Amino acid sequence: MGPSQLPFSRHEYSRRLRKTRAAMDEAGIEALFVTDPSNMAWLTGYDGWSFYVPQGVLVLPDQDPVWWGRAMDGNGALRTVWMESDRVTVYAEEYVQSTVRHPMQDLAAKLADWELGSARIGVEMDNYYYSAKGHAALTGSLPNATITDATGLVNWQRGVKSDEEIAFMRKAARISEKIVDGLLDRIEPGVPKHEVVADALRDAIRGTGDAWGDYPAIMPMLPSGIDASAPHLTWDGRPFASGEATFFEIAGCYRRYHAPLCRTLFLGTPPDDMLRAEAAQIEGLEAGLDAARPGNLAGDVARAVKDALARAGIDKRGRVGYPIGLSYPPDWGERTVSLREEDETVLEPGMTFHFMPGLWMDDWGLEITESILIRDSGPAETLCNRPRRMFVKP
Amino acid sequence: MGPSQLPFSRHEYSRRLRKTRAAMDEAGIEALFVTDPSNMAWLTGYDGWSFYVPQGVLVLPDQDPVWWGRAMDGNGALRTVWMESDRVTVYAEEYVQSTVRHPMQDLAAKLADWELGSARIGVEMDNYYYSAKGHAALTGSLPNATITDATGLVNWQRGVKSDEEIAFMRKAARISEKIVDGLLDRIEPGVPKHEVVADALRDAIRGTGDAWGDYPAIMPMLPSGIDASAPHLTWDGRPFASGEATFFEIAGCYRRYHAPLCRTLFLGTPPDDMLRAEAAQIEGLEAGLDAARPGNLAGDVARAVKDALARAGIDKRGRVGYPIGLSYPPDWGERTVSLREEDETVLEPGMTFHFMPGLWMDDWGLEITESILIRDSGPAETLCNRPRRMFVKP
Repeated sequence: MGPSQLPFSRHEYSRRLRKTRAAMDEAGIEALFVTDPSNMAWLTGYDGWSFYVPQGVLVLPDQDPVWWGRAMDGNGALRTVWMESDRVTVYAEEYVQSTVRHPMQDLAAKLADWELGSARIGVEMDNYYYSAKGHAALTGSLPNATITDATGLVNWQRGVKSDEEIAFMRKAARISEKIVDGLLDRIEPGVPKHEVVADALRDAIRGTGDAWGDYPAIMPMLPSGIDASAPHLTWDGRPFASGEATFFEIAGCYRRYHAPLCRTLFLGTPPDDMLRAEAAQIEGLEAGLDAARPGNLAGDVARAVKDALARAGIDKRGRVGYPIGLSYPPDWGERTVSLREEDETVLEPGMTFHFMPGLWMDDWGLEITESILIRDSGPAETLCNRPRRMFVKP
Repeated sequence: MGPSQLPFSRHEYSRRLRKTRAAMDEAGIEALFVTDPSNMAWLTGYDGWSFYVPQGVLVLPDQDPVWWGRAMDGNGALRTVWMESDRVTVYAEEYVQSTVRHPMQDLAAKLADWELGSARIGVEMDNYYYSAKGHAALTGSLPNATITDATGLVNWQRGVKSDEEIAFMRKAARISEKIVDGLLDRIEPGVPKHEVVADALRDAIRGTGDAWGDYPAIMPMLPSGIDASAPHLTWDGRPFASGEATFFEIAGCYRRYHAPLCRTLFLGTPPDDMLRAEAAQIEGLEAGLDAARPGNLAGDVARAVKDALARAGIDKRGRVGYPIGLSYPPDWGERTVSLREEDETVLEPGMTFHFMPGLWMDDWGLEITESILIRDSGPAETLCNRPRRMFVKP
C-alpha cells in the first residue's frame, strides 16, 4: 500500500524538509515532534480527519520523517504520506480517549527505543492539538530529554510559497469567487439563511473546472445586522431582512490550500455611516495593497490601512491580516506574521496573506477583503478578482 | 445587546450549572476554567467559530459564569450567552497570535483581580484548544494558585441528556437520515465523489422541516475501495468505481447536537468475505443494542459485539462507540465513556452513544452504525430509522 495521489512533487517535499532541518539546526533541536495537522501535511502529505486524537510527525536531521498516530489511522498514513511504510508507526487503540493511559506514553517509549531519550526534542507547545496534559505525559515519561518549545518553527518555513503551492491557491481563489457570486445572487429578503449557506457549501465542494473543492478550515461566517458586530458567528435558520447588511467570510479550498474572500451585501439603502466606512475601507485596502511590496514590513501594510481609516474618523483596532496557505480546522491562518503595526517581518515575494481590515462596529459589520500574493516587485497581486466594494440590493 | 435566541431554557442552564458546581465541590475546585468549546456552549450558550484563539468560561461556586475571550469576540458572547453583559470580559487584540504576549497572561491578571490568585483552579488539561504553552503561561503568571487537572469534569456532567437535548438529537437524526438517503441515491459508478459530497453537505445544512442544519463537528468521511481500510479519509475528485465499497460516516447536526449515522454501499457484487462481515456486524449491532440497557456496563455492549464478530472469525480491535451530543470540531464524541471491554461505566437512561462497530480490513472497510439512546428499561432506542445493512447497487 502506497500513497494514492500525492498533492506535490517529491522535489517539493524535499525542499520543505530541507528548510525545516535548517531551522532545527539553528534552534539546536535534534528531533522535532510536529502535531499541528497543517505542518504534518505540509511536511509529509498526511491528510485525514484524525487530529482529534494525539498524532504527529517526528522530523530528524538524517532520516526520513516518522508518522506516529492511532492504530486505526496507520492505513490512512500509508495512503497519503510520501515516506516508506516502515516510517509509519502507531499506538494501540486502548490508548484512545482512555481515562487510564495516554498516547504520549507510547510516543515516549518509542522515542527512547530510537535512542532519543536524552535528546533535545522540540515540541509545538502552542500549536493546535498539542494539549497541556499530552505535554506533561511526554515530559514525565522522558526525564532525561530536554524538551523545548518549537511553536511555529515549521509554520515560519511555510511563509514563502512555492510555484506549486501558488497554483493550488489560484485554484482555491476561483472557488472563492464562485462562492461569493452565489451568495450575492441568492441572498434576498425573506430567504432563510441556512438555505443560502447550504448552496454556498455545495458551490465550495463542487469547485470549478478541474478543481474539486475541499472543506475549508473555517465554516462560513455570515452574520447580519447587529449580529455582524460580532465577526465569528456562523448561521441559523432565520430569514435575511431588509435594512440589514450581511458580510460573508468564506474561503474556497483546493487540496487544503485556501484563498479567503469576504464581501458585504446590504439589503435596502445603506445608512450614511456605513457608506463612509465602505469608502474608507476601500481606500485602506488600496493603500495597503500598494504598501504590500517586497522589502516593506508587515507593519507598513497595517499603517497604510489605519491611516486611511483614521482620516474617516475610524479607529481600527487589531491586525489587518495574516498569512494563509495550507490549513486544517480550526483556522486557515498560518499563525506567524500578523499585519499589525508592531510586526517588523520583511515582506518577501511568494508570501500570501488574507488582507482583512474588517470593521465591527456597535450595530453593524463590514468586511471587504482580499487574498494577496507578494510579487517580485510592485504592489501585491489579489488572487481573487471581484469588485472591491459593498454590494447593495434594493 | 442581549442573546438573540438561546437554544435552551434558563431552567436547563441552571441544571447544568448545578451539576457542574457539585462536581467542582467534590473535586475541591474553587474555580473551573473551561476551554473546550462544547463545554463552554453547554454551560453558557456561547456559539461562534472563535475557538482558534484562547478563550474560556470561568465557573464559580456562587456567581454566574464569566465568559473570557478575544476583544473582537465579546459581541459574539453578548449575542449568545445567557449571562448579563457584566459577565463578559475580553483581552486586547494585540495578544492575538502574538510572538511576544500570551492571552493567558491577561487571564492570569484578571484571576488575580478577582481574588483567585491563591485559589485552587481546575483547568481542562486534555480538552481541545488548551495548549501546553497556554498552561505554562497561566501557571507561570499565578505562582500562588493551585492549578489542577479537571479534564473531562464538565464532559462527564453532559452524559445523561435532558428531554430538551434529546429533542434536538431527534431533529439531528432526521437530518442524518436525509443525508444517507441522498448518498445512497446519488452514488453511481463514474460520478465524481466531490459532487456527491457537495450535495450531502447541502442536504445537511438545509435540514428537514423546522430543523435547519448546523455544521457537523466532523466533515463527511467516505473512503472507497482500499482507501476504506482507513477510517478517517475525507474525499477527493475521483469517480466512484464498480467493484468497490464506500462507507459514509456522517452526522446531521441541529444547533450543535449530532446524531451520527454510517452506512456502506457496494457498487457491483460484494465479495463473500464482505457479506460474511456484514452479517456478523449486523448480529453484533443487534446483540449490542440488546445489551445497551440501564444498569448494564459500557463494557457489556463491547463484549456483545465482539462475541458476535468472533463467531465469524473477526477479531475486532478498539472500542465500539462513544457518547455523543453537543460538539464542536474536531470531534463529535464527548470523550468520557468508551464502549470498550474494560469500561465499567454503568449505563443510565438518557445517555446517548454513537454505537460504532466499524471494521477496517486490509483492503476494504465496512461501517454500519447507529446513534442510540439508553431507555428507562429494555434495549436501546436507535435515533435514526434506516435499514441496518450494507446497501448494494448492481
